[in-house]
Amino acid sequence: MPDTKRLTRKGQATRDRIVAAAARLMLEQGVARTTIEDIQAAAGVSPSQLYHYFPGKDALVSAVIDHQAAQALDVQQGCLQRLDSIDALGHWRDVMINILTEMQCVGGCPLGSLASDLSESDPVARNQLAAAFAQWQELIRQGLLDMQRRGELAPDANPGNLAVAMLAAVQGGLLLSQVNRDPAPLRIAVDTMIDHLHALTRPMVP
Amino acid sequence: MPDTKRLTRKGQATRDRIVAAAARLMLEQGVARTTIEDIQAAAGVSPSQLYHYFPGKDALVSAVIDHQAAQALDVQQGCLQRLDSIDALGHWRDVMINILTEMQCVGGCPLGSLASDLSESDPVARNQLAAAFAQWQELIRQGLLDMQRRGELAPDANPGNLAVAMLAAVQGGLLLSQVNRDPAPLRIAVDTMIDHLHALTRPMVP
Repeated sequence: MPDTKRLTRKGQATRDRIVAAAARLMLEQGVARTTIEDIQAAAGVSPSQLYHYFPGKDALVSAVIDHQAAQALDVQQGCLQRLDSIDALGHWRDVMINILTEMQCVGGCPLGSLASDLSESDPVARNQLAAAFAQWQELIRQGLLDMQRRGELAPDANPGNLAVAMLAAVQGGLLLSQVNRDPAPLRIAVDTMIDHLHALTRPMVP
Repeated sequence: MPDTKRLTRKGQATRDRIVAAAARLMLEQGVARTTIEDIQAAAGVSPSQLYHYFPGKDALVSAVIDHQAAQALDVQQGCLQRLDSIDALGHWRDVMINILTEMQCVGGCPLGSLASDLSESDPVARNQLAAAFAQWQELIRQGLLDMQRRGELAPDANPGNLAVAMLAAVQGGLLLSQVNRDPAPLRIAVDTMIDHLHALTRPMVP
């Protein structure tokens, strides 16, 4: 695979087109059902062009994971800067619900779908996906840590565990929304976690 | 497909063996990567035997969904009767963690993995999976409703929404446990929901 840093602007655009086509096809039909020929046709490139950038399907899968991880983190970083208040978390939920509604709930979470698809068949991909989820989880944890430092979250709350639970709510909510073709499960799952955090911002009667 | 009610005991055993082999292979390698020939070999049956019970892959997929749905509901119904107290929910979490640990986190949730695998490629399977999740969610909701009726859950808590959030926590937790090969995310996600329910059993300072 050529060093992506050395690609010309045109080369980068071709590579991006191939990755976008592969990502879309793998989301719609799964990795196993997506052939190199499908991707070639969808991206409008020749076999030798595709091979120039990606020597095989493994390299394409790896590029698609990077692409979907960047998209998932962009939703947080681009739109919200930091998830460091109840309001910011509510805005993040709205952004996710809007994307899901636009997609008519097709594909669920692009990263979660790849994780379910590849975890048993491809240990390299599984590790790459685990790293992407760890980065996502860390972004959520940092926001909760900021809230705690400012005294908005109870001192005995555990931002690390709450970040795991929030990411699980997002992933499980997206799966239930995908299978039901309804954004409601994602909204309810994330709102319940926001309610939980909200309760942790107030003292409780023992 | 022959009426399963009319199968002889031996016929039923053969059919069960085929479904168990198909379920295991589909969990390990995904539906698309599992061929009829793989299933035949794993179940130790001839092509004509397999065809006698399942005219094609669609019929096998449908039987595998039924099988995995029954397994998921058995974990709740068989072990716990009802999820109608904080203790019962804690026991349910322990049962799930034990199964996951025994499996070394391979396969995640059998039902969730099928949902992610088939939702975009097979609308019939997607509807069958949505019905299975609805049944699971209803079992959780019934338990929470019982808690509320006994005054253990706050009157303004919404058992329907809490059941969606709990099922999302289970599904998202299992996916993160699968990709990380670590039971901790499932435990943390479910424990956070149990903490949330626990908080709803106690009055809070406004």
